[in-house]
Amino acid sequence: MTSADYVKPSFNPLVEKLAPPPIPSVQAWARSYDGAHGNLIDMSQAVPGYAPHADLLKWLSDAAGSPAYAGYGTIEGDLELRKVYAEHVGSLYGTMLTAANIHLTAGCNQAFVATITAIAKAGDAVLMTNPCYFNHETTLQMMGIEPRYFPCHAENGFVPRVEDVEAALDGVKVLALVTPNNPTGAVYPAEVISEIFELCRRKGIWLVLDETYRDFIEPGAGRPHALFDVKDWRDYLIQLYSFSKSFCIPGHRLGAITASEAVIEQVAKVMDNLQICAPRTPQFAVARGIPALVDWREENRLEIGRRAAAMRAAFARQNGWQLQAIGAYFAFVRHPFEGLTSSQAAERLAKDFGIVTIPGSYFGEGLEQHLRVAFANVDAEQIAEMGKRLRRIDVDQM
Amino acid sequence: MTSADYVKPSFNPLVEKLAPPPIPSVQAWARSYDGAHGNLIDMSQAVPGYAPHADLLKWLSDAAGSPAYAGYGTIEGDLELRKVYAEHVGSLYGTMLTAANIHLTAGCNQAFVATITAIAKAGDAVLMTNPCYFNHETTLQMMGIEPRYFPCHAENGFVPRVEDVEAALDGVKVLALVTPNNPTGAVYPAEVISEIFELCRRKGIWLVLDETYRDFIEPGAGRPHALFDVKDWRDYLIQLYSFSKSFCIPGHRLGAITASEAVIEQVAKVMDNLQICAPRTPQFAVARGIPALVDWREENRLEIGRRAAAMRAAFARQNGWQLQAIGAYFAFVRHPFEGLTSSQAAERLAKDFGIVTIPGSYFGEGLEQHLRVAFANVDAEQIAEMGKRLRRIDVDQM
Repeated sequence: MTSADYVKPSFNPLVEKLAPPPIPSVQAWARSYDGAHGNLIDMSQAVPGYAPHADLLKWLSDAAGSPAYAGYGTIEGDLELRKVYAEHVGSLYGTMLTAANIHLTAGCNQAFVATITAIAKAGDAVLMTNPCYFNHETTLQMMGIEPRYFPCHAENGFVPRVEDVEAALDGVKVLALVTPNNPTGAVYPAEVISEIFELCRRKGIWLVLDETYRDFIEPGAGRPHALFDVKDWRDYLIQLYSFSKSFCIPGHRLGAITASEAVIEQVAKVMDNLQICAPRTPQFAVARGIPALVDWREENRLEIGRRAAAMRAAFARQNGWQLQAIGAYFAFVRHPFEGLTSSQAAERLAKDFGIVTIPGSYFGEGLEQHLRVAFANVDAEQIAEMGKRLRRIDVDQM
Repeated sequence: MTSADYVKPSFNPLVEKLAPPPIPSVQAWARSYDGAHGNLIDMSQAVPGYAPHADLLKWLSDAAGSPAYAGYGTIEGDLELRKVYAEHVGSLYGTMLTAANIHLTAGCNQAFVATITAIAKAGDAVLMTNPCYFNHETTLQMMGIEPRYFPCHAENGFVPRVEDVEAALDGVKVLALVTPNNPTGAVYPAEVISEIFELCRRKGIWLVLDETYRDFIEPGAGRPHALFDVKDWRDYLIQLYSFSKSFCIPGHRLGAITASEAVIEQVAKVMDNLQICAPRTPQFAVARGIPALVDWREENRLEIGRRAAAMRAAFARQNGWQLQAIGAYFAFVRHPFEGLTSSQAAERLAKDFGIVTIPGSYFGEGLEQHLRVAFANVDAEQIAEMGKRLRRIDVDQM
C-alpha cells in the first residue's frame, strides 16, 4: 500500500482549540529575565512561598516509606482523613458533617472536573464569573459543556452583584463560584453568598463553591458563609477545597469535595474512572496535620495578611497602577500601559523587570488592562522590592 | 417561601445510570466470609501480592520528606522520569523515543481518560473487546461516548480475530485494546496486533493500547509488538502503561502515556484540567527504580510465571471448571454452576469459601459462566489451597 491509502485520525476539536496551558507560557517569559533588576519575583502560579511544616514532611516521609500506603485505597478516600476533615469543616461552618459527606481527590482541579462530570454533561451550560479561573473554563470547554459568564465589576471589588447572577441564571445547570476568588482575590461576603444560594435553590441549579483559599481570609472575619445552615443544602451545594495551599503540598495532589451522601455516591463513580483513588501518602499526613498544625496554619494566615498589607503599601505609591481587588491570596491590578495588551504587559514585566504575573486576558474578556498577582508566593520584603521596580518603570516608554 | 417553591437539580444521567464501582461490592462479599475454610484468598482487584522493593520505599520516603517534591511539577511530568522511561520503552520495543513522547499521569485509568478526551468527544464511538476492562467502558459512558464491542472467543483464548475487528471498525474514532488483557489474561500475539494496526491506519482510527501488564509476560517472549517499527506510528498509536503493578505502588498513582509530540501536546491540555500534574513523590522514586530494579522486576516476572503454573495445575484437577485463558496477571475461568449467574457464583465463592474473584458479567455480555481470577495477587501455595477448596465444593449443591 502507498501512504495515500492511509487516513490520519483527528483530535478532539474541543481540546485542539484550547490554548496551551497558561502557566508554562508565563514561566517561559520568566526564564528569559536576565537578572538586571535583581532576583526573579514570581507571582504567577499560586504557590505558598514557604516550606511545609517539618512534622508534615516527616508524616509524608513515613507514609511514603511504608508498604501499607503503597497499596490501593478506598475510592472515596481513606476513612481517617475523611473523618478528620469532616469534623474540621463542620466546626469551621458550625454544622454537622461525617466522613460520608467527604470525597478526597487529587487536588482541587480534579475535585472540579469530578463534580462537574457528576452533575452535568455535554450540551449543558455552567455559569461562572468574568473574570474566572481559567482551568474551570477549559475543563468545561473540553467536556463540551457551555461556559457562560456574568460580569463582576471593579467598582464592586469584583464581588458578584446578585442582580447580575439572577440575570444570567436561566438555562444553566450549575453555578460555579470561587471564594476567596481566583483571580481577583475578592472574598465574597456571607450575605451575598446566601442570596445567590437562595436564587440557585429557587431555580433548581447546583452551586459549586470552590473554597481553596478560605484558610487565608484575614483573621476575625468569622465563618466564610452560612450555607450549611440551610436545611436542604444537600440538594444544591457542593463545596470544593484543596490541601495544596494550606499545607504547602501541591506536588502531592490532594483536595476534597464536601457534599451530600447522594452526591458523593455519584462522584465516586466518576473518580473510580478518573484515577481509582487519591494518592495515599498525603492522606495519611494531612489527617495528622489538620489537628496538629492549627497554630502553624494560623501563623501563615497572619503572614499572608502581612503580605497583603505590603501589597497595599507598594501600590499606594505607584503612578497609574490601581490595586482593584485584594484578598486571601491574589490581587487584581490595573496596569498603566495603555498601549499594551495584558499579555504584552505581563511579558515585559517578566522579561525586563523580573516580576512574573498572569495577564488579565487569561481570565476572561475585557481584561486587557489587568494582571493577576499571586502575592502570597513571596514575602513582604520581595513585595516592597516589586513596588520599587514598578516605580522605576517609565510608563510612557512601555 | 415554602419548600414547594424550590426545585431540586438533577445529576448527570450518564453517571447516575452507571452501576456503583465493582471492586467495593466484591470486597463487601469478602468481608462476610467467616473463615470456615481457612484464610481469605483475595484474587479480585489486581494488586501485586508482594511488597515494593526496599530501595524504592526509601526513594519514596526521601522524596516525600523533601520540600522540593512538595511543590508543583511540570504538567507533562518531571523531565528526569520522562527521559528514563522513554529510554526504557525505546529499548524494550527497539525504537527511538525521547522525553517529548512521554506524558506521566496519576495511574493508567487517568492515562486512559486523558487520552480519550484528547481524541474523542461526546457522540463519538470507541471500539473495545467483549469482555472488556470495566473502567474503560464506564469512562466512555460517563463522557457520552458510545462504547462498541467486538467479540473475543474462548476457543481463540480470547485473542481478537482480525476479521471480528474489521467487521466492527466502521464509524468508530478509536480502537482501545488491553494486552496482556484485563480481564482474560490473553497476551495478544505481535502479528495480530500488527494486522489490527494496519486496519486502523487504513481506516483513520486511533489505536489506544493499554499495556499495564506487559512486564509480566512470560520470559523469552520477545518484544510485545512491533508497532513502533511502523514509520507513521505517531499518527495512530497511543500506548498506555501503569507503574502500579510493576513497582507495587498503586497507592502512589503513577502511569504513563507514550505517543507523538502532537498527541502529548493535546494530552497536556487535558491533564492540566484533570489534575495539573501527577504526584511527584513516585516520579522521583521510579526514575531511580527503572534502571536499578531490573533484576528485581525480572524475579517478579518469574514468580508470576510460577503462579501461572500453579493455576494451571490447580485447574487441571477440577471437575467442571475450565481455565479458558491465562496470561500475564489474570486468568479467565468458566465455572461449573449451571444454575448461577456469575455474580451469584462469585458471591458464594467469596462468602462461603473465602475465594474472591470478579464476576464475568462485570466485563460484558454473555459472560455469566465466567470469573476473572487475579492470580498474581497470591503465591503458589495459596493458589494450591484455592484448588483444594474448589475441589471440596459439591457442584450440584450450588
